[in-house]
Amino acid sequence: MSIEEVTALKSVKRLKVQRFRAHAGVRGDLVVRDDAVATEEPLEIRLAYTRPDGLRAQQSISITMRTPGNDGELAAGFLLTEGIIADAAQIDAIGPCGPPAANGLINVVRVDLAAGVEIDLDRLKRHFYTSSSCGVCGKASLEAVAVQGRYDLHGAALRVRAEALGTLPERLRAQQSVFERTGGLHASGLFDAEGRIEAIREDVGRHNALDKLIGQALLKNELPLGGCGVAVSGRASFELMQKAMMAGVPMLAAVGAPSSLAVELAEEFGMTLVGFLKPDRFNVYTRPDRIG
Amino acid sequence: MSIEEVTALKSVKRLKVQRFRAHAGVRGDLVVRDDAVATEEPLEIRLAYTRPDGLRAQQSISITMRTPGNDGELAAGFLLTEGIIADAAQIDAIGPCGPPAANGLINVVRVDLAAGVEIDLDRLKRHFYTSSSCGVCGKASLEAVAVQGRYDLHGAALRVRAEALGTLPERLRAQQSVFERTGGLHASGLFDAEGRIEAIREDVGRHNALDKLIGQALLKNELPLGGCGVAVSGRASFELMQKAMMAGVPMLAAVGAPSSLAVELAEEFGMTLVGFLKPDRFNVYTRPDRIG
Repeated sequence: MSIEEVTALKSVKRLKVQRFRAHAGVRGDLVVRDDAVATEEPLEIRLAYTRPDGLRAQQSISITMRTPGNDGELAAGFLLTEGIIADAAQIDAIGPCGPPAANGLINVVRVDLAAGVEIDLDRLKRHFYTSSSCGVCGKASLEAVAVQGRYDLHGAALRVRAEALGTLPERLRAQQSVFERTGGLHASGLFDAEGRIEAIREDVGRHNALDKLIGQALLKNELPLGGCGVAVSGRASFELMQKAMMAGVPMLAAVGAPSSLAVELAEEFGMTLVGFLKPDRFNVYTRPDRIG
Repeated sequence: MSIEEVTALKSVKRLKVQRFRAHAGVRGDLVVRDDAVATEEPLEIRLAYTRPDGLRAQQSISITMRTPGNDGELAAGFLLTEGIIADAAQIDAIGPCGPPAANGLINVVRVDLAAGVEIDLDRLKRHFYTSSSCGVCGKASLEAVAVQGRYDLHGAALRVRAEALGTLPERLRAQQSVFERTGGLHASGLFDAEGRIEAIREDVGRHNALDKLIGQALLKNELPLGGCGVAVSGRASFELMQKAMMAGVPMLAAVGAPSSLAVELAEEFGMTLVGFLKPDRFNVYTRPDRIG
C-alpha cells in the first residue's frame, strides 16, 4: 500500500458516545451508542533542498493539524500556495519520513526539491505586512499576495451556467466519504464549466482540504487551473481565495459567507466569488460575467 | 470613543452583490442588491516587555486575520491561551498602536507586560512536537499542552441540565449581532449552569472568537472559569479545546462535530465535550456526569 492508502484508513476514529434525545412529554436521557469522529493529527512538512554552498539541507517548515490521507498532496499544495515552489518540476520526490508514531500514523512528510531550486524560507514567516507603506491592513495583505501571485486571472475565459453552479453543494456532499461517517470534515472540490466535480478532498481544516485539492492537480501537472472553479463547503476567507489564486483558479464558490477581504482579493485578481451557494440561489460578489 | 467602540463600527462592510434566484418554469437571473459582509482584516499583536538586562523591548508575536472589534480582548486572550501570560496582573496596559491604516482601522494592538514578567517567546514557535519521545503525533500534542496546562479540570463541579444545553444554539444565535447582518461570523459564548449566556464574542476566525471571549473574562479577573461552559457555533477542534482548558473551562459544547484529537484532549484534561448540539439532541463524548 502507498502512504496515501494507509493513511486514508486512519481518517476516521471509532468511539462510544452518549447520545441525548428529548422525547415529547418524557424526560430525555443519555444512551450509549457507537459513533465515529474525523481524525485530527499533526502533520510536519519537511523540506530537503540544496543550499547556496551546494550542500543538501533539511528544514521543518510547517506543522498543521490535518486529517490523515493525501499527505503528499497536502505538502505539495501547501508549498505551491505559500509561494515556496512554482511548479511540480521543482519537486524530486515526496514521501513519508521516519517510523510511524505510537498510533501507527506517519505524521512527517518530506519533500525533496530538485537541485538548483532556490527557496525563500523568509516567506513562511508571513511578516510581510509591516514593510508596506500602508502599515498593517487588508490592502497591504493584498499587495503582499500580488508580489507572490503568478497568474493574472482577469482574462480567464471560464463560463459556468447558474443552474450548474446550484448543483455543486449536492455533488460535493455526495462525494464526501468521510463526512458521511463523521459530519466533521470540510471539503474542497474542483469543478468544470458544466458543474461536474473533477476531484474532491476532505480535511478537518478547510485550508488543508484546498491545499490537498491543489496539490493533486499540481502533481498531475494540471496547473494553472484556468478552466476550473473551486467549490468549498464552508466560508470564503482571504486565505482560501489566496490559495485558489496561486493555483490559477478564476472562480471560487462557497456554501457559506465570504469575508470582506475575500471579496477584495477576488476584485484585485479578477476572480469570480460566489457565496451562500444553494441549489436555487446564490450571491455573486465579483465578476458575474463568468456566470450565465 | 474607546478603541473597542470605534472598531465595532468596522465589523461589517457594505457592498453591492448580484443575487441569483431560480424561479419555477422561468430562467433565473442575476439582480443587483445591497448586502453586507463581515470584515476580515489583519491584526498584529505586539508585546512590550522587560528584558533580563532591564531594558524594555518590543516584539511582534502574531498576525491574525480577524474581524475588528474587541481587539484588546483578543490580544489578552491569545496571550493567555498560548501560555505567554498566566493572569491579568501580568498586563500593565493594552491599547492601539500607531496611526490608523488608510481604511481608518488601527490594526496593531500593543500589550505592555508588567515589570518582572518573564516570557518564553520560544513557546510561540509551537515546534514542541519534535522533542517528544513519541515523535510527531496527537499524543505528543497533548503532552505539550499538559506542560502548558495550568488548570486540573477533572474535579470541576459544574453541572448543566440537558434541556438547558439544548437552548444554547438559539440563545447564541439571538445575540450574534454581526452574524445577523452578514451570515459570516463564528461565535463563542460563555454559559452558566442554567444555560444562560453570560458573554458572547464574534469573529471570522473561530479561534479568535474564543480568544476574545476568554480575553474579556481575563481582563475582568474572572479566570479560571470553572463554573462555566463555552458554546461554539462551529466544530470542536484540538485548538479550541486547548484554549478552553487554558481558561479553566470544564465544558465545551459545539454546534458542529468534534475531531478525534478534541475528544482525546477532553479525556486527558477531564473536560466535558458536547457535539452536534441541537435543541432536542446532542452527543456527549467525554465526562457525561456533568450533564443531567
